[in-house]
Amino acid sequence: SAAQRKARRHVRSLTGDFPEVDDRGEEKWPRGDQKTWTSSMRNVFTETSDVTKSIVNHVQTSLARAPYNLDDFGAYQAAALATRDNLIVNWNETQIHFTRKQPKRAYYLSLEFLMGRTLSNALLNLGIQPQTEQSLSSLGFSIEDVLVQERDAALGNGGLGRLAACYLDSSATQELPVWGYGLRYKYGIFMQLIKEEDGSQLEAPDPWLEHQNPWELPRLDVVYEVRFYGSSERLNDGSGRAVWSGGQEVLAVAYDVMIPGYGTRNTNNLRLWESKPKRGFDLQSFNAGDYEHAVEASNSAAAITSVLYPNDHTTFGKELRLKQQYFWTAASLADMMRRFKNMDKPINEFAEYNAIQLNDTHPTLAIVELMRMLVDEEDVPWSQAWTIVTNTFFFTNHTVLPEALEKWPVPLMQHLLPRHLQIIFDIVRRFFLSVEKKFPGDVARLARMSLIEEGFPQQIRMANLAVVASRKVNGVAELHSELVRKNLFPDFVEFFGKSKFSNVTNGVTPRRWLDQCNPALSQLITDTLKLPRDVWLKDLYKLEGLLQHVDDPKLQKSWAAVKRQNKERLAHFVEQMFGLKVDASAMFDVQIKRLHEYKRQTLNILGVIYRYLLLKNMTPEERKKVNKKVVFFAGKAAPGYYVAKLTIRLIVNVSRVINADPDTNQYLSLFFLPDYSVSLAEVLIPAADISQQISTAGTEASGTSNMKFCLSGGLLLGTVDGANIEIAEEVGEDNVFFFGHLTPDVDKLRYEHTYHPVPVEQKCPELAKVLDAVSSNIFGGNGVYEPLLNTVRQGDYYILTDDFDSYIRAVEMVDEAYQDQTEWIKKSIRTTAKMGKFSSDRAIQDYAQEYWNIESSRVSE
Amino acid sequence: SAAQRKARRHVRSLTGDFPEVDDRGEEKWPRGDQKTWTSSMRNVFTETSDVTKSIVNHVQTSLARAPYNLDDFGAYQAAALATRDNLIVNWNETQIHFTRKQPKRAYYLSLEFLMGRTLSNALLNLGIQPQTEQSLSSLGFSIEDVLVQERDAALGNGGLGRLAACYLDSSATQELPVWGYGLRYKYGIFMQLIKEEDGSQLEAPDPWLEHQNPWELPRLDVVYEVRFYGSSERLNDGSGRAVWSGGQEVLAVAYDVMIPGYGTRNTNNLRLWESKPKRGFDLQSFNAGDYEHAVEASNSAAAITSVLYPNDHTTFGKELRLKQQYFWTAASLADMMRRFKNMDKPINEFAEYNAIQLNDTHPTLAIVELMRMLVDEEDVPWSQAWTIVTNTFFFTNHTVLPEALEKWPVPLMQHLLPRHLQIIFDIVRRFFLSVEKKFPGDVARLARMSLIEEGFPQQIRMANLAVVASRKVNGVAELHSELVRKNLFPDFVEFFGKSKFSNVTNGVTPRRWLDQCNPALSQLITDTLKLPRDVWLKDLYKLEGLLQHVDDPKLQKSWAAVKRQNKERLAHFVEQMFGLKVDASAMFDVQIKRLHEYKRQTLNILGVIYRYLLLKNMTPEERKKVNKKVVFFAGKAAPGYYVAKLTIRLIVNVSRVINADPDTNQYLSLFFLPDYSVSLAEVLIPAADISQQISTAGTEASGTSNMKFCLSGGLLLGTVDGANIEIAEEVGEDNVFFFGHLTPDVDKLRYEHTYHPVPVEQKCPELAKVLDAVSSNIFGGNGVYEPLLNTVRQGDYYILTDDFDSYIRAVEMVDEAYQDQTEWIKKSIRTTAKMGKFSSDRAIQDYAQEYWNIESSRVSE
Ligand SMILES: Cc1ncc(COP(=O)(O)O)c(C=O)c1O
Ligand SMILES: Cc1ncc(COP(=O)(O)O)c(C=O)c1O
Repeated sequence: SAAQRKARRHVRSLTGDFPEVDDRGEEKWPRGDQKTWTSSMRNVFTETSDVTKSIVNHVQTSLARAPYNLDDFGAYQAAALATRDNLIVNWNETQIHFTRKQPKRAYYLSLEFLMGRTLSNALLNLGIQPQTEQSLSSLGFSIEDVLVQERDAALGNGGLGRLAACYLDSSATQELPVWGYGLRYKYGIFMQLIKEEDGSQLEAPDPWLEHQNPWELPRLDVVYEVRFYGSSERLNDGSGRAVWSGGQEVLAVAYDVMIPGYGTRNTNNLRLWESKPKRGFDLQSFNAGDYEHAVEASNSAAAITSVLYPNDHTTFGKELRLKQQYFWTAASLADMMRRFKNMDKPINEFAEYNAIQLNDTHPTLAIVELMRMLVDEEDVPWSQAWTIVTNTFFFTNHTVLPEALEKWPVPLMQHLLPRHLQIIFDIVRRFFLSVEKKFPGDVARLARMSLIEEGFPQQIRMANLAVVASRKVNGVAELHSELVRKNLFPDFVEFFGKSKFSNVTNGVTPRRWLDQCNPALSQLITDTLKLPRDVWLKDLYKLEGLLQHVDDPKLQKSWAAVKRQNKERLAHFVEQMFGLKVDASAMFDVQIKRLHEYKRQTLNILGVIYRYLLLKNMTPEERKKVNKKVVFFAGKAAPGYYVAKLTIRLIVNVSRVINADPDTNQYLSLFFLPDYSVSLAEVLIPAADISQQISTAGTEASGTSNMKFCLSGGLLLGTVDGANIEIAEEVGEDNVFFFGHLTPDVDKLRYEHTYHPVPVEQKCPELAKVLDAVSSNIFGGNGVYEPLLNTVRQGDYYILTDDFDSYIRAVEMVDEAYQDQTEWIKKSIRTTAKMGKFSSDRAIQDYAQEYWNIESSRVSE
Repeated sequence: SAAQRKARRHVRSLTGDFPEVDDRGEEKWPRGDQKTWTSSMRNVFTETSDVTKSIVNHVQTSLARAPYNLDDFGAYQAAALATRDNLIVNWNETQIHFTRKQPKRAYYLSLEFLMGRTLSNALLNLGIQPQTEQSLSSLGFSIEDVLVQERDAALGNGGLGRLAACYLDSSATQELPVWGYGLRYKYGIFMQLIKEEDGSQLEAPDPWLEHQNPWELPRLDVVYEVRFYGSSERLNDGSGRAVWSGGQEVLAVAYDVMIPGYGTRNTNNLRLWESKPKRGFDLQSFNAGDYEHAVEASNSAAAITSVLYPNDHTTFGKELRLKQQYFWTAASLADMMRRFKNMDKPINEFAEYNAIQLNDTHPTLAIVELMRMLVDEEDVPWSQAWTIVTNTFFFTNHTVLPEALEKWPVPLMQHLLPRHLQIIFDIVRRFFLSVEKKFPGDVARLARMSLIEEGFPQQIRMANLAVVASRKVNGVAELHSELVRKNLFPDFVEFFGKSKFSNVTNGVTPRRWLDQCNPALSQLITDTLKLPRDVWLKDLYKLEGLLQHVDDPKLQKSWAAVKRQNKERLAHFVEQMFGLKVDASAMFDVQIKRLHEYKRQTLNILGVIYRYLLLKNMTPEERKKVNKKVVFFAGKAAPGYYVAKLTIRLIVNVSRVINADPDTNQYLSLFFLPDYSVSLAEVLIPAADISQQISTAGTEASGTSNMKFCLSGGLLLGTVDGANIEIAEEVGEDNVFFFGHLTPDVDKLRYEHTYHPVPVEQKCPELAKVLDAVSSNIFGGNGVYEPLLNTVRQGDYYILTDDFDSYIRAVEMVDEAYQDQTEWIKKSIRTTAKMGKFSSDRAIQDYAQEYWNIESSRVSE
């Protein structure tokens, strides 16, 4: 009972603290005079005058400025601080609410959270956007100018990190007790610059914390010790326990990021850990004149959360990356354990109160760490501990690309985490026994299923470990989940049964990806559906109501006008950046995502060159009949990914030639927008007539930008891959433009490329001409693109030679369709109308109900 | 005129921004709707209910806590934040006020500011102490418990740094336009721990910024670049100009600390610089797998302001220390120059608007830097620049100890600051010419006066440079200023004339050192003088009014009661720390200050041992007649100062023996209180019956703790040294206990010690016995103290053998005087009554009028 609860350990920390109760079970006022307290306490400020006062007071005090010297950035800071205060009030209420209720909680462990900007989302979710706009205006500022002052929080590489951010938004909106756990990188994803001289990518650090971050709450009293290295001694008492000691101890300090739900007070928490030396500066060394040594310990600890690894869909194999993973999982589990123990439940009930979602294999060490805590610290027998663990964890796979499957060398693990290696080998041993029992003597199967890959050195297969220890495993779209079952883990499906392997198709939050980034469309939808905005934004299937109005010319006209307006915003943006006029009446064709061979930006740029060469060969009269088009690219390449960086360089240099060609530039222009980010996506997506989602079939697990474009009524030009398939299922195949070979063909084609290669000139002469044009240096480069071109000419792993013709035909169909504007707009409306399924609210409810078994609970007003 | 002013450069920065004026010269409202702004702006909160609301709102938002989980530390944080807001409002007003008025300003450049705690001082100066006490009380907290939660800001070693802090308090209180400039060390003076095993000093880092610092305002938009290394090319155009380029560039970021005046809105600024890499993390190296290199630049920049050098009265000669000095002076001068230029005055008027006080030689590079800026950047001819410089700077010397006079090797200066070395040599050349002219052919004089000391390597004499370039030079007490003229710079006095060399006796702020630390005495004084507290606290000469009441038995009784109460507070504190009972009826005898041979803690501890041995030899009957005494020591030793650390070890081990000796411990006990700090001084000083100020004559420039003790009515046992002399002049020789040889004797005695040494057994048998007792290991140590004892037995540079007998007689006189309690209390009242002169208000007015030529200007209510 509550009265029996142990004394608080962390009196300073909020989470896990309950009010005391008196003899009659009523809550006691904890401290001081209750009336003084309650009459002084504030709530969320919703009146414009209160908002204004709060902003002005932050200008005066927090910023120490005056109206005399306040610029847009200062106004942003003050508005952010005023909004932060509101968020914290709700955040606090939410934490107290769930601490009292003691529900089962879910934890989303993700190494990446690509949050983007916060202010406008916070204003939307708090419901004080109009008041704040009004208040800024009377203080002499426009809210648009103020909002763009915010620097993106870019703690992620791309889809996986942005998905985590959408899921947090939906969890809070659904009033679910879900926390995120991640790392507070001092430097997020690098800033991408384009070198003037040669058009290539240059990386610059992203010091996003430089100007203080109003959206986090440092919780310097929430601190855990994390150990590395040292040695592990097994206690030979049959318990399986061991003592791990020595090595390096590092502190994990919590920073809490408030995650407001939409249309609710519920405000969840994203806890990010920062690493810190256990002892600061080594004064002894300093006084002995050895400054270097004095800061050494400090540096090596701070290094852990210093920088996000800028790789997407590849692994690094670096010790520092493994340190990040362990640091983060150890701190997060210690925190969950503390919270659980505050409830005084028996340890065996851990899995009844905690569900942990592993976002890809990055947090797989959490499995081993929980085993270690249970066995070594909580004295739980191994098999009981294993039961707890296998009921606690859930694993999401995000890719079937072989280069993206994490493996860690056994010697590295031995060095860095000696106790964890012992536990992994203990898991391996027991798992082997059970497989042996089911499939006696099947040595090949054992080798395939083992958590250890033989070789020099041996490697630990993190995905296999995650599968073995998780309650459920899911892919992120139907096709992908099927590939996970069939290609990646068929042995495990046979062993554990089909029901362990399932699917949750990704989703995106309609708050950010429709209402915020496309307010005009949101308003048109509200007007058309005749439903309050907060109804359809929380139940996105309601968009289907648009279908009734597809043929309404008034809607069509307004719909087209909204798109045009968004295109003009983008055109203006691009004009400011490049000093070039952009024709907003042309079709806007957009491909924005990480640069990766599997995503085939190469196919797109080769298609653009093809189009350019065609145009060049036309008479001026012929050209006039061509569909005018502006092509946009944006995306970062991993700094060490040579071919991807070459692709950027090609795109930039092609754009310089095309945009400067007076023969053709009214009909075709091309832009590579540097430094792709969430905020840039928010400008590009609403302005697209069509988006390109053209990955080699079977490689893109889901994609989420495809959903975002469709939500804004941008049509889909794509392969039969990932979530494209489900989008087509929803909107109907005649509203999308599909092309290319299907997944089952790909392996066969690759086999042919290797064993019966056909020269590209023979196989796809149109493509050959394009490649030759690049080789002839009409876009400059002096042969620099050959390695890129050779990926197509030789091997062609991503089957461009097989798909090129089909791609060109599809692009022609798009051109043709665009000629009939009314039909196009109808396709656009139909597309938006069927996006209900792709709300992250649906996805998160899938997780909550089918996986985590947690329940919504609303914080009262 | 205002209308001609140039466009703002730093629109974001407050300082130096003016309101625009319209055609009729009236101020225009700068932005937005004036009524909305002004009706939303806040002022200082003085109503208890507003104070409470502000505290509660900070608990809710800034701390994200609730009454359920608020401890004393949280209450401190919230109260501090609420107070900070008030300070900022006044600070802002003050900056705007002086920006509009454009008065001449004075800048106090000090490498050390030993601020101590801020909250209680801020409450006192804002006049909201009672309201805050009341408000905390109704929220369930006692203000005493809350105040002690604050960690000292300890950015200083001792006297020099604390003096700077007192001067800032007085400048603000006197409504003078004075700013401080210093460094924001990440680690202040080390924490002193005493090892349990052997009683020796252990140093631990002081991570004072760990829990965020409410008393500073990060001004991330006030940033300057500072260059190191590189090369300097003279422009051979006869202008003397040069171009300095290459090397390392580091950023200086401003942090502003608000300095509230007492009884005024005026709130001055202390600007502290933090170093920061110009470019953050080196991503290229990181991606190439070279993490070490990636953080290298970042570390070497951050290193500059990482740690305060923990030496007092000695020099280091470390490159990093020179980097600190240049970094700080360069950033500060750039900041002053920007502020000056905002006024659009001709550069020749620089010295009419700026006075710069050099606190010791540490900022001497400022002289060279201003020459560089004027000559190289502002294109001012050399001789004109030199006129500006020599009218701008003022130099305070703080010591005549040879080991404390700064010198920098020429090769180091050449490497780190090549341009500055050129300028120094240019100064030398011109100065030589003028000396040659006045004293033709006097080569020995030239060598003595040179800024360069010959040798291998050559060294730059910073004190000589400071003297040559300053308008005035002062020492810090009459005797010291005399020694500066007679012993240190006689050649310069002859050359420049006497009037350049003057004196400003140090002072202490009565706000902190009487009202705050000794509130009962403050109240008694107010009651006795029948004057409002804020009158006599701002005009400390008013204390003389106490003399009228010296013979009033009621006052005597109350006076004694206050002292007793303060002694009981200290006794309680010590009991808590050591678990030993302390008899508050005994005499409390206190020596607290840096450990240094010249301060002669050794003399004191040897005297204590002498007394202990006497007591041991007495019969119990005899002992009963002895004056009961508790001796307190506190102070830090520089980590590399072997003899000073040995002294601590001896004191601690003597105390362990004495306090455990049942024969004597009712009559004599001894405590070494670890980690001496401003806050500890605030507890010790009001509780002292007598303080020991026993430096070798001619070594302690002034001392300030002597003034603080006297202000709290603690009598003075001391040598005829430093400010002791002026204290005696004020209170009369019969109210102090003087002993020992006088300054003029010391050199002769030292000569004798070297050339005609007499064994201590012969010269001072009483002392010899004490030394032998220590050697016999009755306090343990196994011979470890021999090096310390040998400093007395051999050479005896600090003339303990000469002063010991006189010291012992003086201690006996103190014992005797204490027997007559009424007479003692009268001495105590007389002492306090005559402390008017030692207010830092007087000292700062001296500077303002006789040196800086600046005027007070009150910010209106
Ligand atoms: C910055 C950023 N990166 C990556 C993605 C994911 O894009 P895709 O689904 O095309 O891989 C998004 C989605 O909007 C994004 O905003
Ligand atoms: C912490 C601290 N250090 C040093 C000093 C200066 O002491 P003294 O004048 O005895 O050298 C003071 C004065 O109060 C102090 O508070």
